[in-house]
Amino acid sequence: MPTHHELPFRPDCMVWGTFDAAISPKLRIASGDSVALKALPACTKTRLPTNPAFVIDPVLAEALDVLPQGPSAHFLSGPVYVEGAEPGDVLQIDILDVQPWMDWGYMTIQPLKGTLPDDFPTASLLHAHIDREAGLIHMLPGLDVALDPFFGVIGVAPPPHWGPQPTMVPRVFGGNLDNKELRAGTTLYLPVQTAGALFSAGDGHGAQGDGEVCLTALETGMAGVFRLTVRKDLGWTWPFAETATHFVSMGLDEDLDDAARQAVREMIRHIVERAEVSREHAYMLCSLAGDLHVTQTVDGNKGAHMMLRKSLLDGVRRADVA
Amino acid sequence: MPTHHELPFRPDCMVWGTFDAAISPKLRIASGDSVALKALPACTKTRLPTNPAFVIDPVLAEALDVLPQGPSAHFLSGPVYVEGAEPGDVLQIDILDVQPWMDWGYMTIQPLKGTLPDDFPTASLLHAHIDREAGLIHMLPGLDVALDPFFGVIGVAPPPHWGPQPTMVPRVFGGNLDNKELRAGTTLYLPVQTAGALFSAGDGHGAQGDGEVCLTALETGMAGVFRLTVRKDLGWTWPFAETATHFVSMGLDEDLDDAARQAVREMIRHIVERAEVSREHAYMLCSLAGDLHVTQTVDGNKGAHMMLRKSLLDGVRRADVA
Repeated sequence: MPTHHELPFRPDCMVWGTFDAAISPKLRIASGDSVALKALPACTKTRLPTNPAFVIDPVLAEALDVLPQGPSAHFLSGPVYVEGAEPGDVLQIDILDVQPWMDWGYMTIQPLKGTLPDDFPTASLLHAHIDREAGLIHMLPGLDVALDPFFGVIGVAPPPHWGPQPTMVPRVFGGNLDNKELRAGTTLYLPVQTAGALFSAGDGHGAQGDGEVCLTALETGMAGVFRLTVRKDLGWTWPFAETATHFVSMGLDEDLDDAARQAVREMIRHIVERAEVSREHAYMLCSLAGDLHVTQTVDGNKGAHMMLRKSLLDGVRRADVA
Repeated sequence: MPTHHELPFRPDCMVWGTFDAAISPKLRIASGDSVALKALPACTKTRLPTNPAFVIDPVLAEALDVLPQGPSAHFLSGPVYVEGAEPGDVLQIDILDVQPWMDWGYMTIQPLKGTLPDDFPTASLLHAHIDREAGLIHMLPGLDVALDPFFGVIGVAPPPHWGPQPTMVPRVFGGNLDNKELRAGTTLYLPVQTAGALFSAGDGHGAQGDGEVCLTALETGMAGVFRLTVRKDLGWTWPFAETATHFVSMGLDEDLDDAARQAVREMIRHIVERAEVSREHAYMLCSLAGDLHVTQTVDGNKGAHMMLRKSLLDGVRRADVA
């Protein structure tokens, strides 16, 4: 019987800014179990609101005081050890629920960062109220944006011999994918890099466009429920996702052209694995019906992802594929 | 009173593969008039079907025989001279109707071209039936893709001193934008480069994903109706579009990173022009709600475009902007 677990919401069940296979797990679960967690927003003391209308959660204040900060600003909740997971396996992460739990978030522009660092050489910081009941972010007077929440960071630990890795850069282990398709209902597949996988999540985004161009989304606290299943049968060596309706292939590279090429290659590979079509026809199908989007351009490795409607393959599926 | 015109569907009202301000207009219309035209698919004799189930239209056969081929494969219908248009103006192109008129189309992979030239060093050619009544492209047995037609090429003439330009490369004068958002109902704005603007269109696409990654969309014949209006009031110097619901900013560059940056800069500029928000807040809004998509990666200049929901600005519009 799958069990449901809760990761305690306190600083000693969090890591600030680093992925590292050497970090001790805070929870051990069986494959197929689910885990609920709450995450703090990516934050530093300099990004806190000074307006008392924005209440600072005591766990956030405590974490900013007591946790050692790694090279990035993301607070990860975890890691969670999934029994039986070994390098070579794939961790299937069913994102069952995603809920913002704070009534504010922030955005920032930082000098030398973002998509247009030379155009915006000064820093800007904006705090915005979140009306969870109405499903709206009040960005500015007269300017509301609909909530569409997801976790910017969902990852497993990197290989042990890589040592500590900044959470900013998304890599083969997932992490700061900042992909808005990873909302509730989506399944993310990450290749396991170390025993137990060491799953963690954080970096709640109340909303984000494809690109996350200014550097941040609406950064806020996020609660989530994830079902974690060890897949020994897939053999995939790169992140991949499925929404209710679409396959989502991913590319990550400092160069957006290379990220785009990788996302296309990955989608071709997944089509050919599932369907009785040639590589050439899979490439043509990507051209005809695959939507190549910019995931983000601000995380060191940029991201591109391709969306392909799953039902397109219904009539050409391989008999031996579930 | 605006007048409706029809451009004759015959080779002497077409140009094959070249944009050039020196080409004589085939039709003169007043600003605000509409023009109906039919366009041949981008084609060469080597891309014609040999299966007699695919009927070759006599005008296509004739055009392939009698027209001099420029450096690219697109047949443009036009050019159309719009009275009063001068460099510095913007040509507002309301895309009133788009209808495929052939019952087949093709896709091709060409060596050394496309997003993944090293992965696909051989040529492939696929012809597909179009069921216009059902709205489907029968790509392969068991694999249908929904028709979602648009003109890959919509352009004005380049500046006269640029001489002839290959239709493959989208530039400031528009042309081979290959942007699937340019479907019926969308308005495209192009900066006029020469007297009369010299509008033309072609390169019908029955469907295409964002990216057009293999090199082609479903290449087919397309009929369209366009209302062409000279705008002396806009002062825009780069292409821009509006769908019924979204602004669409565009970037074009050999480097997809630079194309993405340009699309972001253009959207910021258009937000600030329309709304009472600072440049910094416009940049943040792009990050929060602007979707950066890859238009195409196969046309010499690659394309990126950002989609932003127009209604987001309703509460912050400048009083002096219509």
